[in-house]
Amino acid sequence: MRGKLFVATIMLALVASSAAALHRNHRLLSQAETKTLVERLGYPRDAKLLIVHADDLGAAHSINSASIKALESGLVGSGSIMVPCPWLPEIAAYARAHPEADLGLHLTLTSEWSSYRWGPVLGRERVPSLLDSSGYLPLESEATTHMDIKEVEAEIRAQIARARAFGIQPTHLDSHMDTLYHSKVLFEILLRVARENKLPFRVSQQWFARAPFMPALLGPDDPVLNRTIIIEPKVAPEDWARFYTEEIKNLRPGVTDMIVHLAFADEEMKGMTSGHPNWGAEWRQRDFAFVTSDAFRKLLKENNVKLITWREIGKLIGKTEH
Amino acid sequence: MRGKLFVATIMLALVASSAAALHRNHRLLSQAETKTLVERLGYPRDAKLLIVHADDLGAAHSINSASIKALESGLVGSGSIMVPCPWLPEIAAYARAHPEADLGLHLTLTSEWSSYRWGPVLGRERVPSLLDSSGYLPLESEATTHMDIKEVEAEIRAQIARARAFGIQPTHLDSHMDTLYHSKVLFEILLRVARENKLPFRVSQQWFARAPFMPALLGPDDPVLNRTIIIEPKVAPEDWARFYTEEIKNLRPGVTDMIVHLAFADEEMKGMTSGHPNWGAEWRQRDFAFVTSDAFRKLLKENNVKLITWREIGKLIGKTEH
Repeated sequence: MRGKLFVATIMLALVASSAAALHRNHRLLSQAETKTLVERLGYPRDAKLLIVHADDLGAAHSINSASIKALESGLVGSGSIMVPCPWLPEIAAYARAHPEADLGLHLTLTSEWSSYRWGPVLGRERVPSLLDSSGYLPLESEATTHMDIKEVEAEIRAQIARARAFGIQPTHLDSHMDTLYHSKVLFEILLRVARENKLPFRVSQQWFARAPFMPALLGPDDPVLNRTIIIEPKVAPEDWARFYTEEIKNLRPGVTDMIVHLAFADEEMKGMTSGHPNWGAEWRQRDFAFVTSDAFRKLLKENNVKLITWREIGKLIGKTEH
Repeated sequence: MRGKLFVATIMLALVASSAAALHRNHRLLSQAETKTLVERLGYPRDAKLLIVHADDLGAAHSINSASIKALESGLVGSGSIMVPCPWLPEIAAYARAHPEADLGLHLTLTSEWSSYRWGPVLGRERVPSLLDSSGYLPLESEATTHMDIKEVEAEIRAQIARARAFGIQPTHLDSHMDTLYHSKVLFEILLRVARENKLPFRVSQQWFARAPFMPALLGPDDPVLNRTIIIEPKVAPEDWARFYTEEIKNLRPGVTDMIVHLAFADEEMKGMTSGHPNWGAEWRQRDFAFVTSDAFRKLLKENNVKLITWREIGKLIGKTEH
């Protein structure tokens, strides 16, 4: 017995010391071992928490109108704003009139619609590496890998400053077309700026496989989502509701961000997304139809899905037990 | 008889010398005394020439769509493009595909729609005096009087350079919200830039009363319109067609520029011009309806009005007999 107890004690000590090392080196793992994000948010460990999030606010009037309507339906709880876009003043006016709205910033380094475009917040002379040959932010997200890192960081900071100057009090940060998740240096900019601003940012454990640089950069103060849901071009239009329904039915315990792109299939959106069915006018109209439907409301209820917003997650920042 | 002849000769000499002085001091007057603009264009002196001109191209998808449709109706012959606006790429693509289209530049120093705005072509750091406190071109045209003149000229030149970089070969210049007609120094910029680019620009004898600095600045190479027609907010919506009909019926010999603002009263335009019925969505829809109507076509024919474009006027540049 004594011998066995001794071995067990040694093993426990080893495990403890190993855990301490992990704690020092990988605080994230330590956090996961203690409390899940769901628990930190005050819910039972097996709760299924969902953020329904509208991207691209400010990019077009149609996007603003549909997103505001969806936010007011109560089913879409969050959205994020593209500061360099021309319809920023419209969504900023909404944000000022609705300080309770859960609106973050959709940090923007691209201008992807060929007939309708925008430039950076900082002047073209200040951030030349952010521009394509036509003087706008580039059409393709891949172009961001050629940008000067210092200029990217300056532009990101300028977008946040400009949002605040417009009376937007952002609740979170994320990245349009995922550009800031494309490389370690870009992700480090997001982390640095988010932490300095004490804002949560969109990042999901599900992404670690394709972005293996992420876990080591994240700390215990960085709330990490379990999963994101985003519909892909491979889903046929007639399967739209089926796709989302299956995703909700199969939702696992944890925090999931369901990212939708809302607009009406009107003339503005058709003109803007002409020739681009992916994330185009009809796509956005389908997303809008689903997330404002009674079927969606019923589905959430039947599957015990609890809707939350980034505001709740933001309250955790600086409150982690080390 | 001799005495009378002597007096007449002296008087003729005086008239001639006075005319020569006028020629030196006011070449414009000299030009008017020789050939009218109508005659220089190769028409009989009593011809009624009309440019039907759509302003604000590039400002919105709805404006582009309606203006292109109107240009293709054949009744609207000319338009001018706002280079700093987000829908520039769409109208530039049209200009490249239709090199015969009579498209000029609507030089822009304002951003007047409160929910949807744009900045200058040059960076904010380069032309700080052109920005209002929100970092856009100002809402009100009066704000241009506080702009740094050197920055205005640099921005105007940058707008022309950017248009050319987009494959637009402008046929003429004019000024959005008339800002470049507001003062002598601003008008001098327009003149300098237009002459250097060998482009005609919108200026009308009718304006001289309210802008007395104009005539002395104009030379024989500057084609001067006789008149402009532009509908004003005092015209009730139901009187729209009546206003234009009266204007056409009362058209005098000379060159007249009929300036219209075309768009559809769709969601984008309603959102953009919300709360601003003047030059708003319905206003532009009414303009579009009139200038593409059979009634307008018939009216022009019945009143012997000959439609011309800025391209014809541009051919006069550098061809004036001195």
